[in-house]
Amino acid sequence: MNIQEEILKLDWKREPYGLYEPIEYTLAAGGKRVRPQLAMIGCQLFDGNENEVLPAALALEVFHNFTLLHDDVMDKAEVRRGRPTVHVKWDENTAILSGDQMLIEAYKLLSNVPAAKLPTVLQLFNKMATEICEGQQYDVDFESQEAVNIEEYLHMIRLKTSVLLGTALQIGAYIAGADQEAQQAIYDFGINVGLAFQIQDDILDVWGDPATFGKAVGGDIACNKKTFVFLTALQMADIDHRRTLENWYSRVLTDNTQKIAAVKSIFEAVGVRKACAKKVNDYTETAMAILANLPQNAATKELRKLAQQLHTRTV
Amino acid sequence: MNIQEEILKLDWKREPYGLYEPIEYTLAAGGKRVRPQLAMIGCQLFDGNENEVLPAALALEVFHNFTLLHDDVMDKAEVRRGRPTVHVKWDENTAILSGDQMLIEAYKLLSNVPAAKLPTVLQLFNKMATEICEGQQYDVDFESQEAVNIEEYLHMIRLKTSVLLGTALQIGAYIAGADQEAQQAIYDFGINVGLAFQIQDDILDVWGDPATFGKAVGGDIACNKKTFVFLTALQMADIDHRRTLENWYSRVLTDNTQKIAAVKSIFEAVGVRKACAKKVNDYTETAMAILANLPQNAATKELRKLAQQLHTRTV
Repeated sequence: MNIQEEILKLDWKREPYGLYEPIEYTLAAGGKRVRPQLAMIGCQLFDGNENEVLPAALALEVFHNFTLLHDDVMDKAEVRRGRPTVHVKWDENTAILSGDQMLIEAYKLLSNVPAAKLPTVLQLFNKMATEICEGQQYDVDFESQEAVNIEEYLHMIRLKTSVLLGTALQIGAYIAGADQEAQQAIYDFGINVGLAFQIQDDILDVWGDPATFGKAVGGDIACNKKTFVFLTALQMADIDHRRTLENWYSRVLTDNTQKIAAVKSIFEAVGVRKACAKKVNDYTETAMAILANLPQNAATKELRKLAQQLHTRTV
Repeated sequence: MNIQEEILKLDWKREPYGLYEPIEYTLAAGGKRVRPQLAMIGCQLFDGNENEVLPAALALEVFHNFTLLHDDVMDKAEVRRGRPTVHVKWDENTAILSGDQMLIEAYKLLSNVPAAKLPTVLQLFNKMATEICEGQQYDVDFESQEAVNIEEYLHMIRLKTSVLLGTALQIGAYIAGADQEAQQAIYDFGINVGLAFQIQDDILDVWGDPATFGKAVGGDIACNKKTFVFLTALQMADIDHRRTLENWYSRVLTDNTQKIAAVKSIFEAVGVRKACAKKVNDYTETAMAILANLPQNAATKELRKLAQQLHTRTV
């Protein structure tokens, strides 16, 4: 089953057009469709029926795009996947209301899961959706919170990024009839892959190749974002380096060239790149170890490939 | 069971506080709790178990308050139930994110409905939620749409106001085991009561007693809202009155005293008040007639009282 085709098959040609066109626009933009793929793979891993998991896979993709739509409003982001965001192309009220409707559409898709399995799937989905909102709130809170420790940061990215990957896999596995222990294992695989992914993202913001990295390099530094790289650097730095870092991160500038260069050289001086790469490696290894104890078939291969790609990715 | 107590029993003392405090604040504000009451009454009417319907009743109230929260952002409303709105007390991003979480919380409450009844309840709830977003979109569209006919207006208020009342009753009846025909009847009762309620609201905006009416009298006129009263007046007016009305409704003023008085006098000259009151009466009578064919017990009495109150209300 081609998940991309299934997503584009969803019909949004409905009145009132002002409500549904922004939904179609958002979903047509693409992206890698990782979350619905994970739901399908989680189901395949335990020899489930892919038709049973499809509604949940689609629900996860619609939900994920809902979060991007509302996040873009909150972040005042103007571009997403190379196109104007909904609140720019239409307006903010449209982005709020169409986003709300997307969240409802996710639940409508979810309601097509086989009735006997619906209560549990709904519970898993609700827990995940709640955690993502909580993660978003912590992310906002951290902006104005003076000291953020690394555990808090890891908790935040676990909520904001990882639980959606873990839950997609778990829902697939549950629908396929996997037992509780196997469900937990595949969920944990997703969590570890998600943490590795996010930390790699933080690394690429500093050391990514501007030619291949999608976003502007140094963007997190420019907006004083307390990333894993920054927090680890604070922890590893001597008092002088720490003060210089904190000083740079208290400033909002129009031209960030000098700031990015200065911060990057401190990151390199304190050896944070290696420490962060090790963390990505650790999470990836944990994920791989979990996989070794699960059924070995085509789905396992896919998951192994995915974890490896994240680990070595440069974009 | 006291529904107000059950709502206030919901525990929002959770981290991150920035996410949950606005939810607690919104739900503590009160209101008449009409929608959860209707779910309980729909269940009582068919001798159902009130514990089975309670999760859905709470979900409906949380959902309703979610719509108010996001509507207030979209309308830039500063006061709700005598207190600053969430986006004023906190900020707009908080109102968006906490609103999203409230919608998810509604689904979390809903998931506690007995498993065998969950798929249908979820479907009814999703349909209702979708229609409310559609109604909101039509309401927005009508602002810039030159000609709105009365049927379009009635369709919009049915979606925006009535389906929530009808669905609350239907969910209660379904959980109590009412058959399809009885569910449809109680749903239709809610629709008719809702339409009567909204048209009465439009009437009170013009002829309400400023001493008892919650909102500023003439508010709809001031902001050129195409209400049932206005659209009926356009239909009933001769060409001169219609042109004068259309002229007033093309203007945005700082002081609306003269405009409100002028529009009101045209409304009175064309006899629209009586025509609108008749419409409220018709919907109320239809609702009462539906009730006559349903079981007669304490719940029916409550519903009759409710329909009568709406009919004769001045606030």
